[in-house]
Parts: sequence; structure tokens; C-alpha cells
Amino acid sequence: MTTETKTFYTAAFIVIGNEILSGRTHDVNIHYAANFLNQYGIDMMEARIIPDIEETIIKTVNELRQKFDYVFTSGGIGPTHDDITADSVAKAFNVSIDYRQDALDILKNYYGEANITHARNRMARIPQGAVLIENPVSGAPGFKIENVFVLAGVPKIQRAMLESLVHLLNKGMQIQTICYRLATVESKIASLLQETEQNYATVSIGSYPFTANDKFGVRVILRSRNAEDLNLAQQALEKQFLEKSIEFAIE
Amino acid sequence: MTTETKTFYTAAFIVIGNEILSGRTHDVNIHYAANFLNQYGIDMMEARIIPDIEETIIKTVNELRQKFDYVFTSGGIGPTHDDITADSVAKAFNVSIDYRQDALDILKNYYGEANITHARNRMARIPQGAVLIENPVSGAPGFKIENVFVLAGVPKIQRAMLESLVHLLNKGMQIQTICYRLATVESKIASLLQETEQNYATVSIGSYPFTANDKFGVRVILRSRNAEDLNLAQQALEKQFLEKSIEFAIE
Repeated sequence: MTTETKTFYTAAFIVIGNEILSGRTHDVNIHYAANFLNQYGIDMMEARIIPDIEETIIKTVNELRQKFDYVFTSGGIGPTHDDITADSVAKAFNVSIDYRQDALDILKNYYGEANITHARNRMARIPQGAVLIENPVSGAPGFKIENVFVLAGVPKIQRAMLESLVHLLNKGMQIQTICYRLATVESKIASLLQETEQNYATVSIGSYPFTANDKFGVRVILRSRNAEDLNLAQQALEKQFLEKSIEFAIE
Repeated sequence: MTTETKTFYTAAFIVIGNEILSGRTHDVNIHYAANFLNQYGIDMMEARIIPDIEETIIKTVNELRQKFDYVFTSGGIGPTHDDITADSVAKAFNVSIDYRQDALDILKNYYGEANITHARNRMARIPQGAVLIENPVSGAPGFKIENVFVLAGVPKIQRAMLESLVHLLNKGMQIQTICYRLATVESKIASLLQETEQNYATVSIGSYPFTANDKFGVRVILRSRNAEDLNLAQQALEKQFLEKSIEFAIE
């Protein structure tokens, strides 16, 4: 894991779940995590939705943990037969997985000793060397192994786990954003955006057409970690919007 | 591209867009496309959200088009500087990209000759050998090259393009689904689900906990292309639900 200080850190997010790929369930975790990590100067660089297939999980985790500072997995750590994330992550790291006393104690505390079943205890199986991530919502912990954070897929539980793990993350500089909503079409601002991006190298400019009430509009988003450049790019753009009589609003 | 008949076909879906990874925009295309493809017996096996980085687009397209019957890309085919999908896909296939007369004609028809700008014409740059995909919403076409379908990211446009390209797809057998909503917790049904899945090999069973009004529940989803097995698995499960006094409803 990276220990030196960086301006920003990178992350990948892996949703493990047939129910998302089948179109049954609409994932909301990627969007939430992207915004959550943003606050801490951690940029989500890639997200993947993969099926509950051990080999795919192992390959994906191993590819992404080499490429990015952090990897987050979402889903597949419950008590049923299709919850294979913990085992697959252990295999990805080539470590053993077994019942762990601190995790068993957490479950016993949460459910009460009389309600501990074989299936529930399965959630205390943790790969060797992992650090537990507290789950204040439903007891069963997530875990962190090296730079990989293994989280529950239920949104309410995952959000609580993200709060629990913040202290384990290195923090970067938060990216600054300006978002314009323009009453125009992309083709009318294409060259203007390109020039502005070329003039302010630290500023990235995205252009996103949308339809609302059957009218087309464009969202233009400036992003930078350099406040001065961002300010100059903003001034340059707004001067041009005025000159070209393009209506704009900042969102 | 696959030409023999199969029971089902596989697909990957690639969302190209910094705005999704930054948490600014919530992707809705993956979910829609998964359901759309389902109807035609095409299973989405993986979805990725990647940034507007040429190298990443090339690598991702080339990896996934080898692995799956179909690949769909979403976003980055507009007229602005950050629209680099068409060029990147051309590079992935190692073919040239240039203005194409049929695409120019479509744009001229849609916008009217007087409104054709340099930026708009950019949308008529099509990789060599590609087949155009009609866009009844906003003119500028998508395209298909081998087994890769390059679509607009604006949901309304993308949905129209999916309708336009259906005739280009091989169709498989649609998967059959039964979805139970149970007033129980996963740990109480874990062994039952596992046994049922083992007894009916063609049936895959997923178990998805949820919270609603602060109560926990479980959705159990049976999926199969074998109607007889699905029916037997359904009967076996419902018998057990009744025996164990587990309230269930079919959704």
C-alpha cells in the first residue's frame, strides 16, 4: 500500500452481483462511493460490475489492486451460498480464510448467543491478515486486506461501513468543480471548450448534452486541483459565453 | 462475430465518461441495456465504467470484444473535444477513421445544410468498415464494427439506437425468472437455498437482503432457461417456505 503523500489517490470500485447484471436491481453504490471518496481527494478511476463467479472476482481484484491505490468491493459477504466474495478475495491474495474470534464475538453481541446459526457464523470467516471494518447497521463486519476494502452490498450497510473505514484511508486534495448549465448545443461551444482546456492545462473540461422537457441543453464541467487555473478558465469561458450570447447558469 | 446458433449470447457494456466516475451523473444506461438485452436472450456478463482516456478505451474494448459475443459502448460520440470514443474504437480495431458520405448526408438532412458546422461534421467520422446505427432522436448515428456497438450516452438517444440495432443481433432463449419477496433473514434460508440450487443444476438462485421501512427482508431470485427445472425448483422451495412458516410473495 502507498504510504507517501500524494496530491490525490486513485480507486477502483467492483460491484459483485448477478442481480445488477440481470437488470433486476439498479446499482446505487457506485454513484454514492464516487462522491464519498471525492471528499477525501480519492478519484474513482474505474468501476466494474461483475457476476458471482469466483474466477472473475479473483482476476478482477488482482488486476485492479495493482493498478490503483484502493479497491472497494460491494456485495457478496452475507450468509448464503451465493456470497463468495470473502473466499474469492482470500484466494486473490493467496491467503487462508477461517472463522475469527473477534468477528464471532461481534456477531454474538449483535444477534445474541441464542440466535447464532451456522449460516450467520459464516460471516465471521475472514481472510488471514485482514482488518475488520465495523458495521453499525447489521453487525457482520466488512474487512480490509492490504489496499482492498470488502464491503456489504446493501446500500444502507455499505454507507455505514464507508464511514467506519475513513480513518484507514490516505487523504488527497479535493478536486474543485464548476458546473455550467447552458441553453445551447454542443456543436456551438466545441471549439471554445477545446481552446480553454488547452490554455489551462490543469483544468479538465467535460461537456454533457442532456434533454429536459424535450429541449436540448449542455452541462459543462470544469475540474481542477489548481484553484488559480480554475478561476482563470472560468473567467475566460464566461467572457466567451457573454460574447456569444449563450445563456448560462452555474449549478 | 459468432454466426452459429446458441442458447444464449453474452455481452459486455462499457460506459465511457468521467462524469459518471466523478459522481456527478448517475448512470442509468447499464440497467436499461441489461433489461433490453435480456428480452433477446443476451446476458450482460460484465459492465465497466471507464474514464475518457484513449488508452483505457482501446484496452477495454479489445479485452471485452474477445471475451464476449457483443460489446456495447455508451458515450463519447458527440461533437466536442472530450468525445474520443469513435477514434479510440478505430484504434482498437487498427482501422482508419474518416468522414463518411452517408453519415454526412444524415447530418445534413437532420440539421439542414445551413446549420452544418465543423463540430457537427465531426460526428460523421466513422471507422472504416463500420455499419451505421440509426439515431431517430438527434440525427448523428452510432455504429457497429464487428461485434462492437458504439452508442450515444444520452439515455433517450441510446434507447432509440438500441431499437435501431436489434436486427443486427443474434437472438438467444430468454431466461425465465421467479422473484420471491420474503419476510425473513438470509441466515434462516441459507441452507435451503443451497440445497435447492444443488438439486436443480440449471437453476441459479440469488439471495438479496434489503431494508424497507427499517425492516429486513430477502429477495430470492430463481433464474433458468429450463422451464421444467424452474418449475420443480419453485415447487420445492414453496413447500419449504410453508413448512418453515416463512411468509413469501411473488413479485
